[in-house]
Amino acid sequence: MSGKKLYSIGIDFGTESARAILVDVSNGTIAAASVNHYAHGVITNKLPGSDIELGPDWAIQHPQDYINALKRTVPKLINESQISPEQIIGVGIDFTGSTVIPTTSDGTPLALIEEFKDDPHAWPKLWKHHAAQEKANRLTQLAIDRFETFLDRYGGKINAEWFFPKVWEIFDESSTIYNAADRIIEASDWMVWQLTGVETRNLCAAGYKALWSKSEGFPLETFFGAMDPNLSDVIDDKMKREITPLGQQVGELTEKAAKWMKLVPGIPVATGILDGHAAVPAATVAEAGKMAVILGTSFVHMVLSNKEYRVPGMCGMVEDGIIPGLFSYEAGQSGGGDHFSWFMHNAVPGAYEREARRRKIDVFTLLEEKAAALEPAESGLVALDWWNGNRSILVDGDLNGLILGYTLKTKPEEIYRSLLEATIFGTRKIFETFIASGVPINEIIVTGGGPLKNNLLLNILANVTRMEIKIADSEYTSALGSAMYAAVAAGENRGGYATIQDASKKMAHLKSKTYIPNNNDKKTYNRLYSEYTLLHDYFGYGHNNAMKRLKNLRDSILEKKRR
Amino acid sequence: MSGKKLYSIGIDFGTESARAILVDVSNGTIAAASVNHYAHGVITNKLPGSDIELGPDWAIQHPQDYINALKRTVPKLINESQISPEQIIGVGIDFTGSTVIPTTSDGTPLALIEEFKDDPHAWPKLWKHHAAQEKANRLTQLAIDRFETFLDRYGGKINAEWFFPKVWEIFDESSTIYNAADRIIEASDWMVWQLTGVETRNLCAAGYKALWSKSEGFPLETFFGAMDPNLSDVIDDKMKREITPLGQQVGELTEKAAKWMKLVPGIPVATGILDGHAAVPAATVAEAGKMAVILGTSFVHMVLSNKEYRVPGMCGMVEDGIIPGLFSYEAGQSGGGDHFSWFMHNAVPGAYEREARRRKIDVFTLLEEKAAALEPAESGLVALDWWNGNRSILVDGDLNGLILGYTLKTKPEEIYRSLLEATIFGTRKIFETFIASGVPINEIIVTGGGPLKNNLLLNILANVTRMEIKIADSEYTSALGSAMYAAVAAGENRGGYATIQDASKKMAHLKSKTYIPNNNDKKTYNRLYSEYTLLHDYFGYGHNNAMKRLKNLRDSILEKKRR
Repeated sequence: MSGKKLYSIGIDFGTESARAILVDVSNGTIAAASVNHYAHGVITNKLPGSDIELGPDWAIQHPQDYINALKRTVPKLINESQISPEQIIGVGIDFTGSTVIPTTSDGTPLALIEEFKDDPHAWPKLWKHHAAQEKANRLTQLAIDRFETFLDRYGGKINAEWFFPKVWEIFDESSTIYNAADRIIEASDWMVWQLTGVETRNLCAAGYKALWSKSEGFPLETFFGAMDPNLSDVIDDKMKREITPLGQQVGELTEKAAKWMKLVPGIPVATGILDGHAAVPAATVAEAGKMAVILGTSFVHMVLSNKEYRVPGMCGMVEDGIIPGLFSYEAGQSGGGDHFSWFMHNAVPGAYEREARRRKIDVFTLLEEKAAALEPAESGLVALDWWNGNRSILVDGDLNGLILGYTLKTKPEEIYRSLLEATIFGTRKIFETFIASGVPINEIIVTGGGPLKNNLLLNILANVTRMEIKIADSEYTSALGSAMYAAVAAGENRGGYATIQDASKKMAHLKSKTYIPNNNDKKTYNRLYSEYTLLHDYFGYGHNNAMKRLKNLRDSILEKKRR
Repeated sequence: MSGKKLYSIGIDFGTESARAILVDVSNGTIAAASVNHYAHGVITNKLPGSDIELGPDWAIQHPQDYINALKRTVPKLINESQISPEQIIGVGIDFTGSTVIPTTSDGTPLALIEEFKDDPHAWPKLWKHHAAQEKANRLTQLAIDRFETFLDRYGGKINAEWFFPKVWEIFDESSTIYNAADRIIEASDWMVWQLTGVETRNLCAAGYKALWSKSEGFPLETFFGAMDPNLSDVIDDKMKREITPLGQQVGELTEKAAKWMKLVPGIPVATGILDGHAAVPAATVAEAGKMAVILGTSFVHMVLSNKEYRVPGMCGMVEDGIIPGLFSYEAGQSGGGDHFSWFMHNAVPGAYEREARRRKIDVFTLLEEKAAALEPAESGLVALDWWNGNRSILVDGDLNGLILGYTLKTKPEEIYRSLLEATIFGTRKIFETFIASGVPINEIIVTGGGPLKNNLLLNILANVTRMEIKIADSEYTSALGSAMYAAVAAGENRGGYATIQDASKKMAHLKSKTYIPNNNDKKTYNRLYSEYTLLHDYFGYGHNNAMKRLKNLRDSILEKKRR
């Protein structure tokens, strides 16, 4: 290679689009980036090219969109950067999850086979397909009844978005598809299979979404058998028991896949990984005691630790789940930035829109400006950030939002600010639960999407957590993480890295600007947070189940209306 | 008069505007009407023509606006109707209250005197001036400590909106104004004084706002002396002990006042009355067992009874307070239609404004249409209608609003509807408290302002109270009531009436359309109302004092900001 720069490619398959980046392995600099929006996006109404309707909580995707994303992004990276394909030492991919694809034994999605394409269950079920909620409830109850120890690692509840509720849904509602499926596989592993011809099951998705752990493996056959005797062998029938650690080379780019992407065959391909988790080392979080906060539509919190702790209300605790050698904890707020989007679409008066237009700024900027001019507690408002339920620490999707303290003088920017504060109070609740459970957190690093541009939100985060807030430098943290794992899969000999920690030290960076708490605001927020906590506990722990009763009543009214 | 039609004039001084009407005494037909919006409206930020800022809960008015309203409305009535001024047999006025004006001995408001005009306490404090809340709390405590029996007539609490908290506030915060004020007088009596040159104190305002009763008179000097020794003689120093019953002629129109209004001097002028109370006989409510619900910025509920009952959380129970010979009970919701106005000004998205414009309807109509298309409980929202505190039955101005049940799918019309429902739940709470206290209510008649045009609100009222709702026919019930009392003040000899009951029978009418509850909605609303009740009791009875703590915190932050 004689001194030529070396690169790796990271491809991040998100909910609406995929992003591919070409990264300088020596320092993490992004040489080129390309985004492709899936032609079919998130499919919630009808099967593609058909009149077959989907149920109310369905969300599926088109597998061809995934392959098209490869074809449409990667060639642009090479074109744009004018590097030689020989300089690429590895490819890594991350994917949403649990996004579940039933396939034949060679990996062909059943959705692409004429015989099966009219059955909704043949299609990839996206992470946010929520139609298996009832299956998740029954799985949770079953695990409680059987005293299954794995439940402790998942905050005591199995989420409808995970792998087995979706598998059980296929089994229960379409025996044709269940029987035809030689494999049922995570999209992250399916994509690696497409690239390499090698079927693997990555540790990250297995640990966070499929109840697997390094020490205990999968749940027992008797657990699955209790769901249905014919499901006893689901692991051996439809999956694999062998789990592949992160940052390994699982194979090499096949001729076919290389052609899709205009790359050369033989490039090492790394183990797949979930998208949020890939962002962690790319945000410089690769050691114990660090917390990555990923601010997006929802908020995700990843904490690394040397030891195993029991932390209530987590989404998952997985040994080696992100950084081999460390325990990683995932917590989350099912509603984050989507509160702010909701507000923008449903509660900003016309007068504000006109003011923004007149001043040639966007409404977000106007509202941040107005809200930032307020002191904490000046509005007299406090909110519960449960517009989309509560993932951590209450693990209850049936909760919903609340705003208290309205007066006739309440202004839109005050409501907006109360929503920013509420989401951050939710983050503090998670942060404090870690600390109270013994997990040390010495540093908070933030990454994510839109909300990251919100200075006020980051200021509030500093003052509410009373921590200095550092910001990951890259716009593409998930894709960068995938490129970093690719460099680890390539290994030191080929110019990559021995460990993801090494890669993180060289390829991941922080912005120089940080957010530092100030004494005054810290104190005021302590008082507001104690009000948040009182309401959180009162409505969250069932002292008043109004939210659930109202939701049930609403659902029954809507059901009646539909008939 | 030889068969010529006879008329009386009623002038209603509301919160934002005054309305004058010319009424045919024989049948209540309105011959002409004119509205004048006060140039200064409700003043909450700075003293007029100055940079002197008002405190956070202040609400004052400009006395010149009141006189200007006379000048700008009454002459139009005569012009428009082309009647001769001799056909007018009486003038009656009603006013918001307790709206308190410090004046010189000739009735000149101190606010209009150069020397005093820079002192906020010199200005008329509007009923909804809430800065004397702490005084009200201390007065209540004092009355409790002294076992004052009058407290029972006022739901056990003295309201910050009433007369003495405002007087004490002046005394405590501006000795200059207190000392300079020869009189401190209700705006209703001040206006009658302006018209006739005669200073009176009307029974309605004295009974409802100044702790006076027919059987006990005012509280003792020792009560006021316990507030402060220098307040012992407040009644004799600043007021009058003599109280004038309703429907009396207190004097005749002076030359000066006649000139303002282009009337002839000498016309009988009736005792002043509070605006809400004037509406009662004009809504046909002049007998025991009837309840008038006055839907305006705030909601007021008046019930007539032959007997004296103790009803918790009322605003007042006054013998002869509306209809001589009957006990009248007043309850109230300090926030009513102002919730809907708040929503219109602060929470209607630009897209809705554009839709309304495109369809050439107003935004209110658009929202009513969208909200009416929903089923009860379809939104999953429930609200507490305390944007402006709670008058009955909690009697607590420090409470504030709440909305529970937000999701990412919550639409503006759902929030709007939840506000309509919440105000009506507040009405049911009052209705139920009367019934539970033994006061019979056989009929509900609704009157009021803007909210009366809201079909959806009236439908909700029928379904939530499970009563047929009848509607007073006149648009101007308060002004009509004033015109009716004016006809009584004129007396039978001059072509008026002997009693207000007689006037009510002839001059007051109902619309033929009524609102009838339906079984389905009644049931759903029972369930929603029980959620409302749980929240009402939890936040209203101090199980969680979040609203007060947040208000105190807000006030201290604003205080700091001001310095």
